[in-house]
Amino acid sequence: MDLHILDHRLRVTSICKNGLVNFTHPLIKLIFLRNRARCKFFSLTETPENYTVVLDEEGFKELQPSEHLLVESSVWLPLNVVSNGNSSSSSQAVGVTKIAKSVIAPLAQQHVSVFMLSTYQTDFILVREKDLAVVINTLEEEFNIYREVGGEYSAVLSQDVCNGFQKNGKEAPQLTVHPLLIPQNQFCVMSLDPDTLPAIATTLIDVLFYSNSPKEGALPSQDLDCIKFFSFSLIDGYVSLVMDTEAQRQFPADLLFTSSSRELWRMVRIGGHPLGFDECGIVAQISQPLADNNISAYYISTFSFDHALVPEEDIVSVIEMLQQHRKEPAC
Amino acid sequence: MDLHILDHRLRVTSICKNGLVNFTHPLIKLIFLRNRARCKFFSLTETPENYTVVLDEEGFKELQPSEHLLVESSVWLPLNVVSNGNSSSSSQAVGVTKIAKSVIAPLAQQHVSVFMLSTYQTDFILVREKDLAVVINTLEEEFNIYREVGGEYSAVLSQDVCNGFQKNGKEAPQLTVHPLLIPQNQFCVMSLDPDTLPAIATTLIDVLFYSNSPKEGALPSQDLDCIKFFSFSLIDGYVSLVMDTEAQRQFPADLLFTSSSRELWRMVRIGGHPLGFDECGIVAQISQPLADNNISAYYISTFSFDHALVPEEDIVSVIEMLQQHRKEPAC
Repeated sequence: MDLHILDHRLRVTSICKNGLVNFTHPLIKLIFLRNRARCKFFSLTETPENYTVVLDEEGFKELQPSEHLLVESSVWLPLNVVSNGNSSSSSQAVGVTKIAKSVIAPLAQQHVSVFMLSTYQTDFILVREKDLAVVINTLEEEFNIYREVGGEYSAVLSQDVCNGFQKNGKEAPQLTVHPLLIPQNQFCVMSLDPDTLPAIATTLIDVLFYSNSPKEGALPSQDLDCIKFFSFSLIDGYVSLVMDTEAQRQFPADLLFTSSSRELWRMVRIGGHPLGFDECGIVAQISQPLADNNISAYYISTFSFDHALVPEEDIVSVIEMLQQHRKEPAC
Repeated sequence: MDLHILDHRLRVTSICKNGLVNFTHPLIKLIFLRNRARCKFFSLTETPENYTVVLDEEGFKELQPSEHLLVESSVWLPLNVVSNGNSSSSSQAVGVTKIAKSVIAPLAQQHVSVFMLSTYQTDFILVREKDLAVVINTLEEEFNIYREVGGEYSAVLSQDVCNGFQKNGKEAPQLTVHPLLIPQNQFCVMSLDPDTLPAIATTLIDVLFYSNSPKEGALPSQDLDCIKFFSFSLIDGYVSLVMDTEAQRQFPADLLFTSSSRELWRMVRIGGHPLGFDECGIVAQISQPLADNNISAYYISTFSFDHALVPEEDIVSVIEMLQQHRKEPAC
């Protein structure tokens, strides 16, 4: 299989809930006005805590410094696993499950912190630019690694970047067991033709920027077991949307599509208090048992917490296996 | 003819050019999310100086106080002349021309300051709430006056409001002759079905909120004789748009309509320095000669200047007659 190091230098930021009004202008530009913004990698995820915005440096320039904006200090690079047809495709599982053993586990082993961003189209594994040498050194046994520069891919050789770099020892990192939250809402992972984005503009704007203000005639949701979670990304021209079925009902049914109709997902939210960016192995803890059981999963990291989405019909067994896995000593 | 005093209490405000980003959130709500904003009277006009926002008290609540926001201190009430079929309709002229002699001139005579807002559908004459008694007293000879309260119209009798009020004397106000500017752009006055507003949302957002930032691949306009002028209003569910032909080209041709196809207008801009809100007779100065010559005109006041729009084919004779009128002693 091939691993691509994509040509985006990303920043991971967070806008606080009541600060969003101050960022409406740049965010609408980044989402809807591709002629004006030069941003090629943009992702916005609303959670109960805040809005996580991941974007490239061109996009980051649009965000004015503010007390409402937190910025993780590193530059992050997105990696992307490309099945080039040579791999054994016996696994039907999609998402982070596919890369759990080949990417996620080895990086955790090497104490590399990852920030995951699954989309409708693919799964981006974000790693810190400063960790790139160890990433390449760790993954080159499993992958042909290519680095994208200006649209061209060239093979990366470990000796080019590693300069006598030594792998970390095999000592397993000390894993924290984070609490899991299982909200009741059902989620969809969807896409739409980017040319039809204007057709859903007012609905998307409403959901993204005004869903916390009361709507005339609408009753506030009383369901405390449901979680606010909405993710939009526009990456290299591809749109991906993750929303619960309640939000989905606000969009015209004929424009958004899922990979298979009526495919619903349940969420496992990881973390009782904000996870930070330095702990390694969080994604591995979750994706390992899913891979062992061949259960598909999307995985979306945000500024404060991580979120795995698993098929609705598997949620009971997933909860069981995660609880089981946690009782075992860290491998 | 009937004169309606509409049930909107309006504020006239101005947002400075570089302050618009701070008002994107409330303005997009007011324009596109009618379910969320209770505003029934909203008008936004961009000129080279600033953005003039006229809106009712419900809408005004959405605008947070800011160094970027100027607010005229009065409450303004919109008046509206309704042809009830009894009037002689020999005049084919539309817009402010129709009401020049019956409304504009008498109010100027009585030192009542007016703020004009022509739209595709009608012409709103805004007067200060505190001037209402003199307005009614002045116009009741010519009109049956009705006041709208909660959707119901009831006749207003002068003695109800005037309390022994005496008209001002016949002494003519001292008129200032303001410089006129005649930009080269051609304008259209258009409307669209409010249900199709979402279909033009991204274009309208682009034009309103991002037109001052450079667009990739677009050359900046070099034409210094053209003026930046764009007006959007959403009043009682009716949409009106005034824009030049360059802006018009950005919109889908099949959604916007004009009263007659390819009807183009030229602008006469009144004022060399900001006009303020207290001078009376400015609209009268312009509309009087237009009425004498039966030339249609839209008239849009903004925070700093006034703007008359006349049919393209009449612009030469309008300039001539306005210059002639100004040489004559004030009548």
